[in-house]
Amino acid sequence: MKLRDLALALGMEADDDREIKGINSPELAQEDEIAFLSDDKYIAPAAASRAGAFFIRREFADLVKKEAFKLITDDPYMMMAKTSAIFAEPLVKSDGKAAEIGANTQVMERVHIGSDTVIGKNCVIMSGAYIGDDVTIGDECVIYPNVTLYNKTVLKNRVRLHSGTVIGSDGFGYRHTKTGECVKIYHFGRVVLEDDVEIGANSAIDRALFGKTIIGRGTKIDNLVHIAHNCVVGEHSILVAQGGIAGSTTLGRNFVAGGQFGISGHLKIGDFVTVAARSGVSKDLPSGGKYAGFPLMEHKRWLRLQAKIAGLLKK
Amino acid sequence: MKLRDLALALGMEADDDREIKGINSPELAQEDEIAFLSDDKYIAPAAASRAGAFFIRREFADLVKKEAFKLITDDPYMMMAKTSAIFAEPLVKSDGKAAEIGANTQVMERVHIGSDTVIGKNCVIMSGAYIGDDVTIGDECVIYPNVTLYNKTVLKNRVRLHSGTVIGSDGFGYRHTKTGECVKIYHFGRVVLEDDVEIGANSAIDRALFGKTIIGRGTKIDNLVHIAHNCVVGEHSILVAQGGIAGSTTLGRNFVAGGQFGISGHLKIGDFVTVAARSGVSKDLPSGGKYAGFPLMEHKRWLRLQAKIAGLLKK
Amino acid sequence: MKLRDLALALGMEADDDREIKGINSPELAQEDEIAFLSDDKYIAPAAASRAGAFFIRREFADLVKKEAFKLITDDPYMMMAKTSAIFAEPLVKSDGKAAEIGANTQVMERVHIGSDTVIGKNCVIMSGAYIGDDVTIGDECVIYPNVTLYNKTVLKNRVRLHSGTVIGSDGFGYRHTKTGECVKIYHFGRVVLEDDVEIGANSAIDRALFGKTIIGRGTKIDNLVHIAHNCVVGEHSILVAQGGIAGSTTLGRNFVAGGQFGISGHLKIGDFVTVAARSGVSKDLPSGGKYAGFPLMEHKRWLRLQAKIAGLLKK
Repeated sequence: MKLRDLALALGMEADDDREIKGINSPELAQEDEIAFLSDDKYIAPAAASRAGAFFIRREFADLVKKEAFKLITDDPYMMMAKTSAIFAEPLVKSDGKAAEIGANTQVMERVHIGSDTVIGKNCVIMSGAYIGDDVTIGDECVIYPNVTLYNKTVLKNRVRLHSGTVIGSDGFGYRHTKTGECVKIYHFGRVVLEDDVEIGANSAIDRALFGKTIIGRGTKIDNLVHIAHNCVVGEHSILVAQGGIAGSTTLGRNFVAGGQFGISGHLKIGDFVTVAARSGVSKDLPSGGKYAGFPLMEHKRWLRLQAKIAGLLKK
Repeated sequence: MKLRDLALALGMEADDDREIKGINSPELAQEDEIAFLSDDKYIAPAAASRAGAFFIRREFADLVKKEAFKLITDDPYMMMAKTSAIFAEPLVKSDGKAAEIGANTQVMERVHIGSDTVIGKNCVIMSGAYIGDDVTIGDECVIYPNVTLYNKTVLKNRVRLHSGTVIGSDGFGYRHTKTGECVKIYHFGRVVLEDDVEIGANSAIDRALFGKTIIGRGTKIDNLVHIAHNCVVGEHSILVAQGGIAGSTTLGRNFVAGGQFGISGHLKIGDFVTVAARSGVSKDLPSGGKYAGFPLMEHKRWLRLQAKIAGLLKK
Repeated sequence: MKLRDLALALGMEADDDREIKGINSPELAQEDEIAFLSDDKYIAPAAASRAGAFFIRREFADLVKKEAFKLITDDPYMMMAKTSAIFAEPLVKSDGKAAEIGANTQVMERVHIGSDTVIGKNCVIMSGAYIGDDVTIGDECVIYPNVTLYNKTVLKNRVRLHSGTVIGSDGFGYRHTKTGECVKIYHFGRVVLEDDVEIGANSAIDRALFGKTIIGRGTKIDNLVHIAHNCVVGEHSILVAQGGIAGSTTLGRNFVAGGQFGISGHLKIGDFVTVAARSGVSKDLPSGGKYAGFPLMEHKRWLRLQAKIAGLLKK
């Protein structure tokens, strides 16, 4: 749609006829997309962005490329949210071509396979599975009964997904109005599960808002685990049952977390970090440590602290 | 059935032929229903009840309306449990008329839609969804694949339910015998999801025992959240992933809870309350505060307390 | 396959032609199966084992029966993992006979029922359910929509499983290589749900590696509960929502745990133990106590300790 019309739809004004085909993050936006800058943490990627237009606060307007059209607003994030509804992708494609299914792949009865989806060789797709549109599945994957893959999900090779698991649901993203109502942010990204990932029953991994939520090669995820939008889990990691990771956190390789762990959003965790069961991680962590507790601390320190706490009863 | 026959079926006696068509709470019972009073907390609604009969302890028998037939028992709650089995509703209606489906609503293949169900306009019901009997769905709702709506569930307009979510499952209600066995309490209530509610993947919301479990207008619920029977969640609330609310708790409007929160049953929480991730709420809360921890305390206090606790290691 | 060929497939050597039909634990192995001994905790069952062959460390080789062929390895558990892939059972039987379904059992549309499965009388199997191969279901069971029963699951009588629940998924078992990669351990056991078990929505119970995961008679499990491989839950227990039990833990009868509890693996818990909501159990417990907290302690002690902790703020 023309930028002029997009602005009109949002109650803004833009005397410009360039074609805008979607909304995207500053990093990923192309010249026919609109991006947004709402926080000074993201000035660098916005300054380098190829986006053809920006929702932007006046104070930042000179920081992005001159050719980009600036739509000035006090709340660029809200404008992004509203624009996400305008460009929201269809739930089910009405066009698109029939899925390609590789040699020796078994598709049981009662499976939905969407349009423009490609499935590799020697897979088993069991009854009740829903495979959306534009999904890519590699070779030797196993999709157990009643699994759901939302549109655009990517599974590389030898991925195993146990029953009830949901891959690619919308991230939990809303923008609050001043009166406390939520404006939904439609999601455009996807989930990528790399080679040899296995995920237990009834887990849920949300798609990225833009770009990808990534589960690295060889990572194993237990039952009832939640992974939010835009997370990156490093390769060969172990996430035990009922743990959860909030949005946009990046874990290094060989991360190990015991059951019922929790990790806050927007963190960076190094490689070979171990976190005990029921721990809560709310700060960045360098590579290599072993942690426990909530607030989190070194595991040895946590053990000493528990002894001190128990000692309070003697006083 | 006649009250006489109901009593007989329970090993009790009642020389009375009035027709009893169901069991209900004192508040909701009609004249052709039996209610129960087992706890002095509920004397007021029992005294005001229209119920035609009561399971009641002898000491309370004079407190309910004179015309109600009193079945005297030491354990009215157990009698309610046993009676719930007698009046349990069918899992699938054998009669009932075909569902009505509004204009421009898309129902994909492999969807079950029960009897006497009404679905509005411009909805999308995706493959693998199960829509029970007597369900009401408003306009512009989206039911993602493999969602289950039990009988009698109500969705108002623009409700979005992500894959794997279950709405209306039986509450976790049993009565223990003296030898420690559980007698199941069949549930007769429903779940109501008001306008603009969105619920993530693999969450579960239980139906009320009697009456309604209600999720208020505009409330957003993340993945893997549990909401027990008879809860009321106020409008425009935010419940982050893997949190849970035990039975019969009422939350005010704009309640916000971080991931992995827990809330005990039978609480009343005010408006605009915020609870940090991983907090456990076990007491009533007035409107407006910000809390953390388990046991719960004001967030500022929790921060100070964590510093004090960490200080123990210096001693 | 011949032991010689199995050894070859694993890069080992065995000058022996006995037929090996599977891998099993020392306790359960038959003469045509290979077992493993990797830990001195399991010397007693290994010494008494009927297994025809063993993966075993050299130091233990003389402790098992003389007739068993010993495949000497530094890492018997890794050899077991690799062997589990060789003997992995098919996801879907290609032979097998049609299921037997008892009188008056209602099977709705869109249900998969596997081969060699037997279903009793007066059951209701609702749409979207997946009942695998070699499953046994007793009388008067209710399987709600979109439930998955993996192969070999056993339900006794009057079992009720709410929507989205998954029974029999693979346990979360892997063996790490020295470079930190996971080798999957395929699972051969099953889940047994005894009489009158009821399980809420979106819970997950994993099959045993070998043998059985058992949920005892009359036990009630709420929504979103996780029970790992090889657990035994005693009869008439109550497991409230979002709790989890790690692998190989045994609970006594009438165990009661509040919501969001967690229990470590390989524990033994006595009868009539009660654990408060949000507690974490990481040690064996004798019969009869009431506990809270993490680290776990007697409930009374926990209450006193919380008062002491709160008192820190006064200093």
